[in-house]
Amino acid sequence: MSIRSTRAGWTPGYSAEMTTTSQPGQTAHDSRSGASHEAVEGWRATHEDVLREAAEALAARSYFSRYPDSPSPRVQGEGAAEAGRTAYEQRLDRSFDLSQPTTGESVGDEVSPYGPRLGVSYPRLDIGAALAAAREGMRSWRDAGPRTRAVACVEIIERLNARSFELGHAVMHTSGQPFVMAFQAGGPQAQDRALEAVVAGLVEQERIPSSARWEKPGRDAAVVMVKDYVCVPRGVALLIGCNTFPTWNAYPGLFASLVTGNAVIVKPHPRAVLPLAITVEVCQEVLAEAGFSPALVQLAAEGDGERLAADLALRPEVAIIDYTGGPGFGSWLEREAAAAGKAVFTEKAGVNTVVLDSADDLGAVVGNLAFSLTLYSGQMCTTPQNLYIPRGGIATPEGRVSVEEFAERLASAIGRLTGDDARAVEVLGATVNDVVRGNSARLGELAAEAGGEIVVSPRDVAHPAYPDAVVRTPAVVRLDVSREDVYTRELFGPVALLIVTDSTEQSLAQFVDTVREHGAMTASVYSTSEEVLAAAREAALDAGVALSENLTGQIFVNQTAAFSDFHGTGANPAANAAYTDAAFVAPRFRVVASRRHVPA
Amino acid sequence: MSIRSTRAGWTPGYSAEMTTTSQPGQTAHDSRSGASHEAVEGWRATHEDVLREAAEALAARSYFSRYPDSPSPRVQGEGAAEAGRTAYEQRLDRSFDLSQPTTGESVGDEVSPYGPRLGVSYPRLDIGAALAAAREGMRSWRDAGPRTRAVACVEIIERLNARSFELGHAVMHTSGQPFVMAFQAGGPQAQDRALEAVVAGLVEQERIPSSARWEKPGRDAAVVMVKDYVCVPRGVALLIGCNTFPTWNAYPGLFASLVTGNAVIVKPHPRAVLPLAITVEVCQEVLAEAGFSPALVQLAAEGDGERLAADLALRPEVAIIDYTGGPGFGSWLEREAAAAGKAVFTEKAGVNTVVLDSADDLGAVVGNLAFSLTLYSGQMCTTPQNLYIPRGGIATPEGRVSVEEFAERLASAIGRLTGDDARAVEVLGATVNDVVRGNSARLGELAAEAGGEIVVSPRDVAHPAYPDAVVRTPAVVRLDVSREDVYTRELFGPVALLIVTDSTEQSLAQFVDTVREHGAMTASVYSTSEEVLAAAREAALDAGVALSENLTGQIFVNQTAAFSDFHGTGANPAANAAYTDAAFVAPRFRVVASRRHVPA
Repeated sequence: MSIRSTRAGWTPGYSAEMTTTSQPGQTAHDSRSGASHEAVEGWRATHEDVLREAAEALAARSYFSRYPDSPSPRVQGEGAAEAGRTAYEQRLDRSFDLSQPTTGESVGDEVSPYGPRLGVSYPRLDIGAALAAAREGMRSWRDAGPRTRAVACVEIIERLNARSFELGHAVMHTSGQPFVMAFQAGGPQAQDRALEAVVAGLVEQERIPSSARWEKPGRDAAVVMVKDYVCVPRGVALLIGCNTFPTWNAYPGLFASLVTGNAVIVKPHPRAVLPLAITVEVCQEVLAEAGFSPALVQLAAEGDGERLAADLALRPEVAIIDYTGGPGFGSWLEREAAAAGKAVFTEKAGVNTVVLDSADDLGAVVGNLAFSLTLYSGQMCTTPQNLYIPRGGIATPEGRVSVEEFAERLASAIGRLTGDDARAVEVLGATVNDVVRGNSARLGELAAEAGGEIVVSPRDVAHPAYPDAVVRTPAVVRLDVSREDVYTRELFGPVALLIVTDSTEQSLAQFVDTVREHGAMTASVYSTSEEVLAAAREAALDAGVALSENLTGQIFVNQTAAFSDFHGTGANPAANAAYTDAAFVAPRFRVVASRRHVPA
Repeated sequence: MSIRSTRAGWTPGYSAEMTTTSQPGQTAHDSRSGASHEAVEGWRATHEDVLREAAEALAARSYFSRYPDSPSPRVQGEGAAEAGRTAYEQRLDRSFDLSQPTTGESVGDEVSPYGPRLGVSYPRLDIGAALAAAREGMRSWRDAGPRTRAVACVEIIERLNARSFELGHAVMHTSGQPFVMAFQAGGPQAQDRALEAVVAGLVEQERIPSSARWEKPGRDAAVVMVKDYVCVPRGVALLIGCNTFPTWNAYPGLFASLVTGNAVIVKPHPRAVLPLAITVEVCQEVLAEAGFSPALVQLAAEGDGERLAADLALRPEVAIIDYTGGPGFGSWLEREAAAAGKAVFTEKAGVNTVVLDSADDLGAVVGNLAFSLTLYSGQMCTTPQNLYIPRGGIATPEGRVSVEEFAERLASAIGRLTGDDARAVEVLGATVNDVVRGNSARLGELAAEAGGEIVVSPRDVAHPAYPDAVVRTPAVVRLDVSREDVYTRELFGPVALLIVTDSTEQSLAQFVDTVREHGAMTASVYSTSEEVLAAAREAALDAGVALSENLTGQIFVNQTAAFSDFHGTGANPAANAAYTDAAFVAPRFRVVASRRHVPA
């Protein structure tokens, strides 16, 4: 009989490449498919080097960055900034086309936090057809093998890098980030995180040999088998993007799913579609060039309030979900989608903590802290909220600095960063939405309710270029450690709490309790005492949150470096996953083996 | 201030070891705790070698076995068999003491599938106190670090190995396995799987360096940080054992959780407590000798029908669940416990498949298949159930063998294995429970309902030593491929189905559909055609099940070899996990980092 001649009888989607399997004993994770991926071969030479260097850095957790984040023309190239800005502007007020099935309708009503309406309309995805196409596309993607997938992913990231300025403007005008930050975090830093996910996924798959010889000693002769191992995807992945970091928080899940063989439906936040639409466009372009289906990455844009994510999350085709956003829907996913057997990776929200004990150079402490609070108006999931300080103040070489004096010095430092409107907006950006504006506006109420006091007052900043932007400097409210009811809530945006405790021990104990119950993405401690630092490390282990110690220079607690710092831990309620550990990539694929005897 | 002198104010369970932290820059995964673990140092010399060899084998997926499975005195030592039997007999008709909090009551009413009542009573665990003690014990276990934990785990396994005969009898008289199989699968083979889990967990943790130097080039000087990484456990793990393979199916989860720093509550099947009670006893003994809390492994025995597993599964302290057993409770765990945020690893049940196409040596095929069906009366989760055969029969060098003739030859082969009662019971063992006996007893009904025919008739076997044992040889019912309603159900025990299809292509297509929907732990194919084998490999990838090709010798589809074969894939509904891939170990721990500047 001929299997080939009667193909029509096979399972749906069975394509010609599928029976051209590898020979037993094949030694590398080569393509199992007979399909031609010439383009991939052209990329392989350069990208294999990138993958090797990145894999070495990830294993050592040493410094590595593929994509320099300086927006300087010397680094990004002459004219790149202008070209990127033009590219962004040409996106506005028109429809955004993608290679994917559409219902014929379009959606999209993004308004920049800086004021302007973007006017981009996106094709509404035909979900049924999209999921079918995604599954169909996974077949040759699976057969291409981990390394070919990784090379194609690197090519995608390289091309995203070439569009960093365009992406920077798109991120700025959807998130409200200041431009330089939008360029850096939305461009090169997000691309480094993407590369990290690719490498983590590649390494994890390549830990399984593609073939092994198994030789069991026997009484007379050995029993010998050859065993082949193939990494197979879990299914279609759903990526649910957020408003504040549309690319940085999306790329780890997107690329971890893709490199492990899954197709990805990208569901952006309705107010931050453009950065991910550009991303999907690049993905589709590279996949098609490489001979794969562009349906491996599709954009599911929606209008505000349509709840498409919840619908998609429970579709039987969807096997993996990555989510960044508010705890309400995140908890729903962790409950309902996990109950439906999906692998669910979330980053929600938490109560980030700074424990203030003592300092050699208090000026440097408040300077570093002021920047952390000010950057992007405190709208980072990693921005500190709860600053614990002992009632007796902070020990410094100049003597104890009281709580009041510390607050004054912090206010001055914030003032220095934000005193000039034009300079201020380059750090603060714009407030992203009404929730943030509300947290800031209800400050007096909050202080009164907490029996506290506003010790750093906010200031409204007029944006020189965008008069409609709502920009406000960070405020700090002092309150007593007894008011757990207030400081265990997340106050997203430019509001921090200076919590007065009886001692550093109490600060650390409250830190542990609060993080265990309410979660945190970051924690930091300032102390000159090795004993306190050791206790803080123990507290951080107990709380399950990463700790930064005595940051006084150009590293800030709200920043994590790809390849070295984990973002989140998965060990407290703020996030059930981390960028990027093995637990973030290993459950995205399965291993299917075949074994057969061979002569001894 | 002194942190040490005011310990009482800290979080509960904060013990003296906890502030003796590592120095920054520590280079190995050494113990972070100041506690003395002298016993561990004594074991380290030998066990480090074991860990290295096992890790190499696991990476290569080559042949490796630490624990020889021959029960011969030349291998196990003179007198070992007799001493083990005596040790087992001394367990009977008395209470089993363990180092764990008890309510004062006792439970236990195991009856051997061979007839005798075991008469062992177990202390009923005080669940609240047990969970508190487990959490308390995790602290120094965490601080000991992955390598010390792995060494202690190897010591546990070595001591279990020394008690393989005792365990063999305990497994035999709880599962109904024949003795040699109970010894092998319940002893050395389970121990190899335990070692595999330890090594997989160790390797996964050691992929994270314990410390890294991060040096970011700067305009003037580099920014340098030292970053320390600590693996922290998820929480208390719950292990839910099964009736048929009380140790083999329990050890992977037990040791994967333990080596990654978690405490484990072992909840055995109410009819198979003794093998896990002995296991827990050994764990507690080794942990105590090593200076750790015996509460890191505790036994939660229950009477039949108490539903203790469901209660434990939803306790907030429980973070990880491993389960082997029926699909009803398994699906409940996958739904409810996963929704509650627990990491849930299940092995439930499926419909294992053999696709019969053609053969060079049909005698060897039926011989191998007969043994697979006969071993332990088909009560393995890996025993084939659905044998697909084309209506036109099987091509052989002697011409086509018809369906009828194939059935006759299979019947003869089973007859040769089971013709003599005394020899038969050494392969068949005893039926484990009434469900299995029912499946076998209702055979005529089943055949009639399916419009099929009994083509291999069962035979009742009288056990020469245990007259109360119910022993029955495997039966085979022939039915048509159209009767999906019948063959998509799991028929646990000595019943297989010979499903007559239009062609091998239809056989493979039905195989894919059935496994995708109903799951399978194993699949095998017999064919002389490279095209059919290639198509079968593709089908197995689509179905998400491991494939054995043309097994005709001493390897059987229902066996998997530790370090080389994965048991289960996680890619079909039979099991959501595999022994032992990275996805089985990586989610059991989290990484918590601390970072600080150091001079460039």
